[in-house]
Amino acid sequence: MTTVDLNSDLGESFGAWPMGDDAAMLDIATSANIACGFHAGDPDIMRKTVALAKARGVSIGAHPGYRDLHGFGRRAIPGLTSAEIENLVAYQIGALQAVAALAGHHVTHVKAHGALSNVGCADDMTARAIAAAIKAVDPRLTFVVLPNSALARAGEAAGLLVVSEVFADRAYDDDAALVSRGKPGAVLHDAGLIAERVVRMVQDRAIVSVTGKAIKVDVDTVCIHGDTPGAVDIARAVRQTLEAQGIAVAPFSSRV
Amino acid sequence: MTTVDLNSDLGESFGAWPMGDDAAMLDIATSANIACGFHAGDPDIMRKTVALAKARGVSIGAHPGYRDLHGFGRRAIPGLTSAEIENLVAYQIGALQAVAALAGHHVTHVKAHGALSNVGCADDMTARAIAAAIKAVDPRLTFVVLPNSALARAGEAAGLLVVSEVFADRAYDDDAALVSRGKPGAVLHDAGLIAERVVRMVQDRAIVSVTGKAIKVDVDTVCIHGDTPGAVDIARAVRQTLEAQGIAVAPFSSRV
Amino acid sequence: MTTVDLNSDLGESFGAWPMGDDAAMLDIATSANIACGFHAGDPDIMRKTVALAKARGVSIGAHPGYRDLHGFGRRAIPGLTSAEIENLVAYQIGALQAVAALAGHHVTHVKAHGALSNVGCADDMTARAIAAAIKAVDPRLTFVVLPNSALARAGEAAGLLVVSEVFADRAYDDDAALVSRGKPGAVLHDAGLIAERVVRMVQDRAIVSVTGKAIKVDVDTVCIHGDTPGAVDIARAVRQTLEAQGIAVAPFSSRV
Amino acid sequence: MTTVDLNSDLGESFGAWPMGDDAAMLDIATSANIACGFHAGDPDIMRKTVALAKARGVSIGAHPGYRDLHGFGRRAIPGLTSAEIENLVAYQIGALQAVAALAGHHVTHVKAHGALSNVGCADDMTARAIAAAIKAVDPRLTFVVLPNSALARAGEAAGLLVVSEVFADRAYDDDAALVSRGKPGAVLHDAGLIAERVVRMVQDRAIVSVTGKAIKVDVDTVCIHGDTPGAVDIARAVRQTLEAQGIAVAPFSSRV
Repeated sequence: MTTVDLNSDLGESFGAWPMGDDAAMLDIATSANIACGFHAGDPDIMRKTVALAKARGVSIGAHPGYRDLHGFGRRAIPGLTSAEIENLVAYQIGALQAVAALAGHHVTHVKAHGALSNVGCADDMTARAIAAAIKAVDPRLTFVVLPNSALARAGEAAGLLVVSEVFADRAYDDDAALVSRGKPGAVLHDAGLIAERVVRMVQDRAIVSVTGKAIKVDVDTVCIHGDTPGAVDIARAVRQTLEAQGIAVAPFSSRV
Repeated sequence: MTTVDLNSDLGESFGAWPMGDDAAMLDIATSANIACGFHAGDPDIMRKTVALAKARGVSIGAHPGYRDLHGFGRRAIPGLTSAEIENLVAYQIGALQAVAALAGHHVTHVKAHGALSNVGCADDMTARAIAAAIKAVDPRLTFVVLPNSALARAGEAAGLLVVSEVFADRAYDDDAALVSRGKPGAVLHDAGLIAERVVRMVQDRAIVSVTGKAIKVDVDTVCIHGDTPGAVDIARAVRQTLEAQGIAVAPFSSRV
Repeated sequence: MTTVDLNSDLGESFGAWPMGDDAAMLDIATSANIACGFHAGDPDIMRKTVALAKARGVSIGAHPGYRDLHGFGRRAIPGLTSAEIENLVAYQIGALQAVAALAGHHVTHVKAHGALSNVGCADDMTARAIAAAIKAVDPRLTFVVLPNSALARAGEAAGLLVVSEVFADRAYDDDAALVSRGKPGAVLHDAGLIAERVVRMVQDRAIVSVTGKAIKVDVDTVCIHGDTPGAVDIARAVRQTLEAQGIAVAPFSSRV
Repeated sequence: MTTVDLNSDLGESFGAWPMGDDAAMLDIATSANIACGFHAGDPDIMRKTVALAKARGVSIGAHPGYRDLHGFGRRAIPGLTSAEIENLVAYQIGALQAVAALAGHHVTHVKAHGALSNVGCADDMTARAIAAAIKAVDPRLTFVVLPNSALARAGEAAGLLVVSEVFADRAYDDDAALVSRGKPGAVLHDAGLIAERVVRMVQDRAIVSVTGKAIKVDVDTVCIHGDTPGAVDIARAVRQTLEAQGIAVAPFSSRV
């Protein structure tokens, strides 16, 4: 039986400011990528999110980003050395591990956030530093990456368990990279279409680029979003359609 | 043979702003309490400080404080719940553990910083929350506390290894609490006097209050400061005088 | 004809995190108190909020708070000197004045936010420092205060134009102070009841305490909230009921 | 008689962390560029620095930078829109104006800091946004720029008073741009050499590039540094040598 994980970026509130419907998404996702306080999140929100995940049997991972609360980690901070990226990533993973311990849960994966992920997909130095940080903190942590990216190569070179992620609602170019958000068609909005597309990607183990090119990739986990009420509905449709097609939805961390 | 530890608050720089002479103090202290980014420090400074400590065989501990970079953790942030204090403390310990892993070192103790320590000395709720966070993250961590304080009671009640600290250069009142910095005579400045006083505290296992009252306490570790060139000289005098008197200076973490 | 102002705390988003429905509230309120980046808001949100206010003819004021983004300015930061409070308040007023200039609008009032207001209502030193900052930056700025408070006294002593504010949905004790949010009945929720109560306060120039005591106060402006959809509906009901009762709703700044 | 201004970047401490010897530099410089809290500085440090400048008759200017306390404003934050740069700059100028009012002084110039200046020298959009912010806040503010830069062009196009700055201790390339700090010879260290070079630049109204090319520029103000004890000595030598050569040292703001 085919199995796939559904991962979602959660715990992205900050102080008095809520973001997203984490409770709803934790009924749909099987892995939660939790913001660690640098681009979003704080120790209290991390604790609440971890506790909700624990109660629903959802796996948790660190979602480290650049130190850029005001920019939500979406801006590439230039000039960081390899050691500085290692420190940034390790700090955030460790912080989540400790907060997870308070909630009786444990961190099983890491996925880079926003601009740190974008830079890491293309820049070997950044990718290797992220992988090195994960390995130093806990070499059993699974590294969630975009297929065919510098992150994937760095994770494999470091001997980490690497899990390959596709996006439910994002268009791909012919290099299996995401079409950038600014471009027309970069983000899909039709729930039915998105759900069908996810089923096809999981069954075919391939993504189809904007030009129609099929690119064989591992599809271990599908990224779903919950930042708007519409997004939660799409995520629910993705899960229901997968299950209706006989595809099991389960955390990758139990399978690796 | 009598043995005592010398601990010092280090890693208190931030970004472009240096503070203290960590390299000099790591030649004198046997345990380093490292700021974790909330009142001072950042991942890069933590990494450098841990690496220096590792190279000199100095034990390291987390030095968590309130989230108050601008106030250097010296202001009591009101209104935190027990869970919020747990989260604050756990986050910071975990962050240091992970950064320490990058430098091949490991965290063996925790000591609360500034206002968090002051509040924790008097307030049972705060003290218990700090102890609970330490226990959840790693119950083998040693908890450095002021003797006779709420922190000491909370640490013992939680079953933690509790280590009792005296201050080389601070006056005590009759309850073994520190005389607050504002009052005359609260801080001692004469290196010779300070060094002799430390030897007496270690040998007698007692502090002498400002009124002359001797109070029996455990003296496992002596806090020394390095924020000014004068402070480094005093710290060096303390160590030399202890050793000249036949008292061994060694990390408490090797003894517990 | 009786006239009253409706003021609302706006511009309380931060970076990627929205808060409140500022556009809706700017159709109801006649004065906007705009967060200045210390407890909420940032230069971009300030600019947008000012531009919206300008387009609707809504007066704007600075809403300075403690430097406490994580706590949303709701925690009393201890230990600030008089000069430090002056600096804190002046900085925020000036920042808004400059951003307002970009949007072709100008700041006409100041109202302290959250814990800074609460502390200022009771503590003369804090109240005088806030008034001194306003006076130094621009002595023509109107100072919005709770009646009978230390803020009111400090504003008058400084020779500032002082405007007296009542809260549409908050219960008062017999000293005309707000019943603290934790207590039962502190916050009213019934739109009809709130609207009637506001009309009565404006017409009688008095508040009625929880024990039924009528306290004569100036009622220059009524604070309305917009942080929830329900709150916006209440605010709209307040305005409609005032106008239905023949009370004009207009910015105080045009009247002073 | 030839006159020149000496400007220095001051007020770069933050909270508990001092930086530079502002008191010493305010005896040498005639214009102070004061950090406004985004890359360095805070309201209290701004107040103290302004008061020191006022007491010595030193002109003050805002020194706005990117929102990047951890990176000290030395990293180019990507992705800001023109309006966002305007907001960033206006906010910081206004904040300083208000704090200056508390100290009885007033802001007469603006100079962009660090990466914001570097980006502004080359990028027309950024340069125009900085100039637009200055003009909106107060069109009488003098704009301190590198000669031949996008900042200079934008300032002139906006109709601002533009003042041309040379660096005492930095090498120039053939386009009159600063040789970047990483390259050998980018920063000069010999006090005598630096002082002679400044005299020559002021007298000849030209800079000499690393290849020996003389480039005619206005030399209204010379940037001197005070971040190290050695730097203060160099700055003092520059001033003494200028005066010994019969060149008057005075704030540009009194001349424009």
